[in-house]
Amino acid sequence: MSKEDIGITASKEDDFSEWYTQVVLKAQLADYAPVKGLIVLRPDGYSIWESLRDTFDQKFSKNGIRNGFLPVLIPESLLGKEKKHFAGFNPEVFWVTHSGENQVGDRLALRPTSETLAYTLYSKWIQSWRDLPLKINFWNTALRAEIKATKPFLRTSEFLWQEGHTVHATQEEAEEEVMKILEIYKNTVEMELAIPVITGKKSEKEKFVGAVYTTTMESIMPDGKALQMGTSHFLGQNFSIPFEVKFADKDNVENFAWQTSWGVSWRLIGAMIMVHGDNKGLVLPPKVAPIQVVIVPIYRSEETKEQVILQAIEIQKELELENIRVHLDDRSELTPGYKFNDWELKGVPIRIEIGPRDIEKQSVIIAKRYNREKSSLPFNEIKNIYGVLDGIQEDMLETAREQSDKNTIEISDYSEFKSKIQNGGFLKAYWCGKQECEEKIKEDTSADIRVMPFGSEDTSGKCVYCKEQSISKPIFARGY
Amino acid sequence: MSKEDIGITASKEDDFSEWYTQVVLKAQLADYAPVKGLIVLRPDGYSIWESLRDTFDQKFSKNGIRNGFLPVLIPESLLGKEKKHFAGFNPEVFWVTHSGENQVGDRLALRPTSETLAYTLYSKWIQSWRDLPLKINFWNTALRAEIKATKPFLRTSEFLWQEGHTVHATQEEAEEEVMKILEIYKNTVEMELAIPVITGKKSEKEKFVGAVYTTTMESIMPDGKALQMGTSHFLGQNFSIPFEVKFADKDNVENFAWQTSWGVSWRLIGAMIMVHGDNKGLVLPPKVAPIQVVIVPIYRSEETKEQVILQAIEIQKELELENIRVHLDDRSELTPGYKFNDWELKGVPIRIEIGPRDIEKQSVIIAKRYNREKSSLPFNEIKNIYGVLDGIQEDMLETAREQSDKNTIEISDYSEFKSKIQNGGFLKAYWCGKQECEEKIKEDTSADIRVMPFGSEDTSGKCVYCKEQSISKPIFARGY
Repeated sequence: MSKEDIGITASKEDDFSEWYTQVVLKAQLADYAPVKGLIVLRPDGYSIWESLRDTFDQKFSKNGIRNGFLPVLIPESLLGKEKKHFAGFNPEVFWVTHSGENQVGDRLALRPTSETLAYTLYSKWIQSWRDLPLKINFWNTALRAEIKATKPFLRTSEFLWQEGHTVHATQEEAEEEVMKILEIYKNTVEMELAIPVITGKKSEKEKFVGAVYTTTMESIMPDGKALQMGTSHFLGQNFSIPFEVKFADKDNVENFAWQTSWGVSWRLIGAMIMVHGDNKGLVLPPKVAPIQVVIVPIYRSEETKEQVILQAIEIQKELELENIRVHLDDRSELTPGYKFNDWELKGVPIRIEIGPRDIEKQSVIIAKRYNREKSSLPFNEIKNIYGVLDGIQEDMLETAREQSDKNTIEISDYSEFKSKIQNGGFLKAYWCGKQECEEKIKEDTSADIRVMPFGSEDTSGKCVYCKEQSISKPIFARGY
Repeated sequence: MSKEDIGITASKEDDFSEWYTQVVLKAQLADYAPVKGLIVLRPDGYSIWESLRDTFDQKFSKNGIRNGFLPVLIPESLLGKEKKHFAGFNPEVFWVTHSGENQVGDRLALRPTSETLAYTLYSKWIQSWRDLPLKINFWNTALRAEIKATKPFLRTSEFLWQEGHTVHATQEEAEEEVMKILEIYKNTVEMELAIPVITGKKSEKEKFVGAVYTTTMESIMPDGKALQMGTSHFLGQNFSIPFEVKFADKDNVENFAWQTSWGVSWRLIGAMIMVHGDNKGLVLPPKVAPIQVVIVPIYRSEETKEQVILQAIEIQKELELENIRVHLDDRSELTPGYKFNDWELKGVPIRIEIGPRDIEKQSVIIAKRYNREKSSLPFNEIKNIYGVLDGIQEDMLETAREQSDKNTIEISDYSEFKSKIQNGGFLKAYWCGKQECEEKIKEDTSADIRVMPFGSEDTSGKCVYCKEQSISKPIFARGY
């Protein structure tokens, strides 16, 4: 393979889509599966997902949520029990019709989402107020046959996600849960992936099929398109009634329960690639990086080699004691320059270079991946790298926030809306609340209401489309 | 619900099968899904699986194995590429024929196992010796439509498992890997689940379809039936040739690689239930117990209640500081007796009882679940509970080993074989190596060769069936 083939050959600025695909494949996060629209995760990609999973699990657990397992097959009859919900998913469902040589009776759907299956069980498990709240999360995959063009992590016919399903005795408690989860989502995405998000509600048109309302977190990508980063739904009693999720209260009176469901998917990894990556490849936030620090020893003779390698091992051990995920690249058949490119492509946050002259000076060179700055660090301050990693994490969020702010503009006039949307970005504009206006805007501009940010219930303006009194100032954008 | 309905009503000795099912359902480990042959895991059941996963992940990682993700859908054409392998799985495959309203071209199999999919990718990822060894593990589910009677954890049409797939430059290295994995399996099952296993090779008849040979670990259950606890296969070049998993060696000569695959499933949880459970319900080994210690406060008046609860909270905090998974059962509407039964059913290893008299004596009562012994422990020795848990873990393995030894007998005569097999158990008997004898024995007695233990290549005896010279002294048993 030539050097060209190994590195990224497309520019993020000029051909974003090609750049993205190259980063995914060449940084070895994922690859295409033999079935169109499906991908596999290679260890570096899956490791990021595991890191997110562990963080979410910790936070879910503190909030009294435990994990469970649901099978992937759902009978057609069950899926059809909540009509709107079924109609929404039906066109995307994969159907199992045969097992071995035999035709199955009721066709079996591959889980597009598990509300119907989970609530059939919840209805058995819940008898009285003592069984509430019931809060279970499931780490699995969802399957939705994509007809649109697919893209690794962003749009695939099977995707890794978590789906949480909770049941409560009161509406108030369920609505609080919806918000607690959204807060966990926001916090995790900002702190772990260094991506700022805007939280709020979806419009009626954009809400989850079957929900009373959907809360969402949205981010704007560097190409100006919006990405839905996760949703948390208040289901009210929309499912508890058809699925008979009932409980006897303290007075032994039967009530239908109040429910929530919520999920994030590996889309978050797609967002991370888009927001932070550059023309050298992937740029990983330290908290989720499989390798946080790579040590590249530099030597020109066999004589100096031993000394350099020994010192590198010393540094490696010291960093391991600090629980830093460190790798020593001692491949002898490759040049330092090749290694620099390789680890930059893979997005490792810090590279340590060490050669004979550094040993003389009792210091190493530190190269930060995200801004490509180099500095010198004395041996006796090696432990400070922990702090350097924290600083990188913060700086990356700060930079991403600035980018996002730059991509967010206020619009009052519809012709301005139509012109500005060509460049992408988050467009804040007043809206009257009518689905008609929302649809017309979509027709004209391909922009949806992505999110009505909390606190944006602003009645002081005029709808950007029809000029009637506003009920809200949502964020419009073209989406992924 | 009456007390009868809550507790276990079947006896382990008299109706093992019914007893098992009751423990699974009533201890709330799992429940039936709406599709026949499928189960769901409730949080207590899934937590045990997570605990096993974390232990395996640590050991895999130390052995240079990383995790990845593969989609569940495999095209029929791909699955058919290794003929024997395909023929073995074909009758059990679930087939997707439609997505939405559209028929799919090449039918899609739900993964019965992922060799064919993984090796199609490995063939792309591996170019030279530098890319080897490649060792990836996948935590997912496998789907095999069961025609036999299904049983939670033991035989289900979808099951949680891990499947590892490694590629090596030499036969020797691949065969070493097979053994390393088997050792990790054995070690984990014995240390975490307190179940003794016997390791060795499967006979040609019983090996994995597509393997050169299969190594296995087997255990004998209290009902006298054998359970396969995990397998590690040497695939040789059986897959690398049809899937073109090739590498250029240091002299730039192309070679077909050497491969292994291996897996354990949630069957291990089924084994744990069978081996340790009793007529009061589940008995959990401390290492995998979601709750290791439950504290039940005992009081008769509101006056003593506060004092008891405060002391209980004190103990809870102290145990939490020791990283013990502890739960304080402060449900005020239930009697201590009800709570004792409840936690015994759920198998919590240690119950701490604390009442006003215990506080006077500055001690608590400790009740061990596995042998139901009670003893007193002074407040200032509460931290020793960590050691008590370790002791329970060791004792449980010891007890299980004694049970297993009792269920293992040497047989030299075929009529004795036919009579003894009626009581179940592991039967050690000489075998000539001919598949004909193996098949005749199976026909007569329903017993298979479960395992040819390592070191059992004994040529000094006569085949229990045909009386010709033995090549091995395998273990025969009726299996799950």
